[in-house]
Amino acid sequence: MTDRLLIIGGGAGGISTASYVRQKRTNLDIVAIEQGSWTSYSNCGIPFLISGEIQEPSCFVSQTPQQWRDRFGVDIRMGHRVESIDLSSRTAELRDLARNRTYHLGFDLLHLGTGSKPFMPDIAGINLPHVMGIQNLSDAQKLVQNIEILYSYKQSLKVVIIGGGYIGLEIAEALSKRGIQVTIVERSGHLLKSIDSDMADIVEAFLKNKDIKIFCNTAVSKINQNSIITDKGSLEADLVLLGIGVVPESTLALEAGIKIGDQGAIRVDGRQHTSAEGVWAAGDCCDSFNLVSRQKDYYPLATIATKQARVAGINIGGGYATFPGVVGTAAMTIFGLEIARTGLNEAEIKRAGLSAESVKITSTSKADYISDVGSIDIKIMAEKTTAKLLGVQIVGPANTAKRIDTAAAALSAGMTLEEIISLDLVYAPQLSTVWDPLVLAAHKLLKEKFS
Amino acid sequence: MTDRLLIIGGGAGGISTASYVRQKRTNLDIVAIEQGSWTSYSNCGIPFLISGEIQEPSCFVSQTPQQWRDRFGVDIRMGHRVESIDLSSRTAELRDLARNRTYHLGFDLLHLGTGSKPFMPDIAGINLPHVMGIQNLSDAQKLVQNIEILYSYKQSLKVVIIGGGYIGLEIAEALSKRGIQVTIVERSGHLLKSIDSDMADIVEAFLKNKDIKIFCNTAVSKINQNSIITDKGSLEADLVLLGIGVVPESTLALEAGIKIGDQGAIRVDGRQHTSAEGVWAAGDCCDSFNLVSRQKDYYPLATIATKQARVAGINIGGGYATFPGVVGTAAMTIFGLEIARTGLNEAEIKRAGLSAESVKITSTSKADYISDVGSIDIKIMAEKTTAKLLGVQIVGPANTAKRIDTAAAALSAGMTLEEIISLDLVYAPQLSTVWDPLVLAAHKLLKEKFS
Repeated sequence: MTDRLLIIGGGAGGISTASYVRQKRTNLDIVAIEQGSWTSYSNCGIPFLISGEIQEPSCFVSQTPQQWRDRFGVDIRMGHRVESIDLSSRTAELRDLARNRTYHLGFDLLHLGTGSKPFMPDIAGINLPHVMGIQNLSDAQKLVQNIEILYSYKQSLKVVIIGGGYIGLEIAEALSKRGIQVTIVERSGHLLKSIDSDMADIVEAFLKNKDIKIFCNTAVSKINQNSIITDKGSLEADLVLLGIGVVPESTLALEAGIKIGDQGAIRVDGRQHTSAEGVWAAGDCCDSFNLVSRQKDYYPLATIATKQARVAGINIGGGYATFPGVVGTAAMTIFGLEIARTGLNEAEIKRAGLSAESVKITSTSKADYISDVGSIDIKIMAEKTTAKLLGVQIVGPANTAKRIDTAAAALSAGMTLEEIISLDLVYAPQLSTVWDPLVLAAHKLLKEKFS
Repeated sequence: MTDRLLIIGGGAGGISTASYVRQKRTNLDIVAIEQGSWTSYSNCGIPFLISGEIQEPSCFVSQTPQQWRDRFGVDIRMGHRVESIDLSSRTAELRDLARNRTYHLGFDLLHLGTGSKPFMPDIAGINLPHVMGIQNLSDAQKLVQNIEILYSYKQSLKVVIIGGGYIGLEIAEALSKRGIQVTIVERSGHLLKSIDSDMADIVEAFLKNKDIKIFCNTAVSKINQNSIITDKGSLEADLVLLGIGVVPESTLALEAGIKIGDQGAIRVDGRQHTSAEGVWAAGDCCDSFNLVSRQKDYYPLATIATKQARVAGINIGGGYATFPGVVGTAAMTIFGLEIARTGLNEAEIKRAGLSAESVKITSTSKADYISDVGSIDIKIMAEKTTAKLLGVQIVGPANTAKRIDTAAAALSAGMTLEEIISLDLVYAPQLSTVWDPLVLAAHKLLKEKFS
């Protein structure tokens, strides 16, 4: 009898694995379970759906359920949920949500791509119907529908977003493009906790001229039908959105006795194998090794999920591949401003038990005599004594964020500041400064703190 | 008595050194000699002067002669030329060009930043007054003056550029912005010899719609007063410009008995020291070690010159610094198209005695659902058997060229394709594809040629 691989999850960390498995093994029965109605779509496209710039969610889909069936021979069951996994009998209990019936399915190999879910803070009123997390395409569609319904009753809409991270900011921009009055309420002292406060200050100053109200150092104590109550007063809100981040969806794995790491993510080894024989995981449900901190950490990002899914797929198919780890690269744009980071930020350096020296400089995106030259702020951190690169953060105009890739490669290679200074980087007056901003920053840090 | 450092050359490879020397040593007499009338300017800005986008050449100057005197205590002698160097008596023979007098100056330490000069092909008529190399600001000013004079006699101007490399193309674009009819004549089969023909084809196809005529496989046999004669026929030409590239200006060093490498460039070690005790060199006059080919090669580029000048300066000042080498990064833009390369191209791989596998893919600059997404062509080459990266070439719209920096860092670190696939690079729909084009290309090459 042919072995069966059961894949849980129709997203980047889940079903994507099937294409790599199939390249290695044709004699395998692959069943994939997805509780929603979409597969293989770009979550990162959600803001474009919310802003109305894109109206057809199928734009974000790289493979439909039917394509998974036709191209890769995957028996994909949409609108199904896995209720439990029994590893000793190697069976899963499945629920067909439409037909409202439960059945069991045996498997030989199991791949978990269960993803993540919005973090739900313990706030009174969090379960009211006008409070939403925006985690998947269906959430985004529901939000757009809610907005349209509300607009048929009201001239102007007010939305409060709880959380000023990447997701909160991206959705804020998207809603403001629809003419909605958006307020972001952030508990901590600054936006974008993934970058340091001195860099977040630059973003906050930039956003001062935009149509988004931002309240930092503000805690929400209660959500009412038309307002939220904070420790600074109340704010009107037709809708309340959660942008506080996500947590791993690892309940099934936990209940099946699979090892879960500190942050609630499924623990995987370098080949994406879990603690249970023949069980693999990839994407937002599992953890990653951080090559800079040398610790396990949690990075729910599409780029990581797709890479992990490839590695899991090759290994499930009988090949050999490893995912060495991440360096903590992330980026976003807001109203044309590009923000990117890689490596560790100050808080993460402290948490990893490391000690760093840092500098922040302002450079330019091009030679200063080019007409549309812009200002680039860059912060660089290196380990005390060794001068090894630990992290870089960058904020600037178009053509800024991808520059952090150079630092990401340098982190992967364990480069020191002196090695970064010697990098042979692109220069032309329209493209950069003769001394690339990264090199300038490394230069300054080396001179001020290491000589 | 205070030691004296004599610096020959007021450009990036020459006088720039003085600022680093000065940081380390105040008790040093620094004399710098420049035969022209400018110091420390961006050569790469020349096309903007020719196009008329920038009219004031002082925009390109980072330090004027007076600033070198005031800020760094450099006795800079403009309009002076070094006629000869005597290393045994440690004296230089100087000529004051304005006063037309010659005198001698002793030195203890010598730094050569003599730069490069246009390659002059052996063509009849090459010395006619309307034939010009565009090597420095004065050349560019002279060209602009010539154009203005010609325009007072003629309604429309025709310029022929001999050589379709970076310089030829940049000047062609600049002249066409002035409404001048530009023709490029290139001896070899394609433009831009620094990239491979399959990538140059993309550039040539793009240029088909622009106001520049291009004749490849065309050799110039003679230059007349108003035309050039090629093996394909004659072309009208009010002015003829040389864009065939540059050769090192190393005559002084050669005559002084300093070792010169294969390509006529001054041979330097990792600290930018020449074969003669106490004599250093940096910039276009000297050679560089290529970290990929593991051979000495010649890279007359501003980025290399500035890095070498820093290393030379630190060492001359009594410190310690090394310039590990280059990986062959270069970039340009033409009519908004960005072209970049790093590592070795096919010809260079062959010349280095290496063997490579390669693929070329077409990807996109952003997620394919973003409105202004563009097409990126990328070629990647890796060494047979080891799968170590050897070279990358990229052509695409805005935000393309700086992507090659990631490959440049990967080359410096000696990464393999598998390591490149694992790099943690920036993704957001507006910034890139989930699988970065470089990673996609590495992925395809690995799959097709190494498994």
